[in-house]
Amino acid sequence: MVVHKVAFQGERGAYSELAVIQFFPNSTPIPVRSFQEVIETLLSGVSDYAVVPIENSIEGSVNEVYDLLLQSNLFVIGEMYQRIHHCLIAIEGTDQGSLKEVYSHPQALAQCRHYLNEKKLDPVPVYDTAGAVKMIKLGQNKNAAAIASKRAAEIYGMEILDVGIEDRKNNFTRFYILSRDPTYTKPSGNDGTSIIFSVKHAPGSLVNILSEFARREINLTKIESRPTKKTPWEYNFFTDFEGHVLDARIRDVLRVIEPKTAFVKILGSYKKEMTG
Amino acid sequence: MVVHKVAFQGERGAYSELAVIQFFPNSTPIPVRSFQEVIETLLSGVSDYAVVPIENSIEGSVNEVYDLLLQSNLFVIGEMYQRIHHCLIAIEGTDQGSLKEVYSHPQALAQCRHYLNEKKLDPVPVYDTAGAVKMIKLGQNKNAAAIASKRAAEIYGMEILDVGIEDRKNNFTRFYILSRDPTYTKPSGNDGTSIIFSVKHAPGSLVNILSEFARREINLTKIESRPTKKTPWEYNFFTDFEGHVLDARIRDVLRVIEPKTAFVKILGSYKKEMTG
Repeated sequence: MVVHKVAFQGERGAYSELAVIQFFPNSTPIPVRSFQEVIETLLSGVSDYAVVPIENSIEGSVNEVYDLLLQSNLFVIGEMYQRIHHCLIAIEGTDQGSLKEVYSHPQALAQCRHYLNEKKLDPVPVYDTAGAVKMIKLGQNKNAAAIASKRAAEIYGMEILDVGIEDRKNNFTRFYILSRDPTYTKPSGNDGTSIIFSVKHAPGSLVNILSEFARREINLTKIESRPTKKTPWEYNFFTDFEGHVLDARIRDVLRVIEPKTAFVKILGSYKKEMTG
Repeated sequence: MVVHKVAFQGERGAYSELAVIQFFPNSTPIPVRSFQEVIETLLSGVSDYAVVPIENSIEGSVNEVYDLLLQSNLFVIGEMYQRIHHCLIAIEGTDQGSLKEVYSHPQALAQCRHYLNEKKLDPVPVYDTAGAVKMIKLGQNKNAAAIASKRAAEIYGMEILDVGIEDRKNNFTRFYILSRDPTYTKPSGNDGTSIIFSVKHAPGSLVNILSEFARREINLTKIESRPTKKTPWEYNFFTDFEGHVLDARIRDVLRVIEPKTAFVKILGSYKKEMTG
């Protein structure tokens, strides 16, 4: 059996590592520090695939990942959804009554705001969820807890004081599976395609392009604008829609919009996953 | 002379404080910890106005601010643009050769990546630019520098080792000026309007709404999608366009799109500022 190496961003125990294990059950997850390093690890061949978060149902898009997908010559070969369950994690034997502060990534803290208010715990933003667990472990701090995944607690040998502490239960993260290989997977009959395009400088350009999809009854599932970074307040549009690049209807719409765009890039087609 | 109190997010010396001083030269800036607290400070009457970053020309939109504008009953009465100049800041008398680490907000670190690589300095992400300066000052750390504004260096009595260290010179942040008062300023002839809307569940809904703007030759300057947070993968669209709510053409388009949306909210009309 081939054991794939799969790069992810974060400390061991990060939600991205859980996503790797969920999509590639028999893989070796490779933790790296930044999204930039995830891309470099895959491009250099140190890993076979990469798994990156692209959007959260509460927080929205992961902008840095979108920007890296524009620059790098990588392909989206799959997607997956993960339900986020936050845990309150502390050093073994910590008394809940002695807790004063809770460390985590600002987004995780924001997602547990009501819980923290109710328990009168002071949120302290740090740069990573699993990193917050590690920090408390190393400091042997018994007045602080961290918010992170169950897996992070297990990896660092910590106690889980509470589970499912997120304020909203519809908290999902969508991940892309990235590959160096541009080969399209066969259409499954339930596929999605992701592209990037920018518009020419003319009023109505964006509407003109989007209406080509509407005319063919191609369902747009997402449209996200990101600055081009070259000219302030000019944007690239990251667009997801239903269908596969090898479908006649999709080939047709891509052929028609091409001359209307300033630039267009196909990120990939992949089997659509179910979401909550 | 009335001295307005104006809330902003961050430590003293933050880029947002510079924006307050630029828009309200004779005001008292009120620093608070989070964007949530900025909104609360204004709603409770502790401040008269608030200044919040809404978008950066490199990093894109400030999602948390968009989400707070949806929930809170505040109005946008102005906009402004700030050119971002990053400084390398250290304790007075620090030798550049002894520097190993550079502390700052992850976005500021990313914006100076080439500079840090060239100087072989190790980036350390912390939660705030001005906070990084304060941290080095308090720790009296002579092996570390911070990336922050010139003003942050002045406030904490630190030395500026280098200026303009950002990789790209077209680095601007756009700010909104917020007020509790819904009164529209008079049309100036060069105005912008910001609205939020969501679409009904039908293919082509978004295109249908946007084409009403295109048909009237109303120039859309920005469209940003944010999750509704109620139903995963449903979005609110934050849209900026040229014109004033008191203009006949804008009144007309708002009247026409209203029944096509699931919901629409006018954030405000304001005099458009120049940008680079």
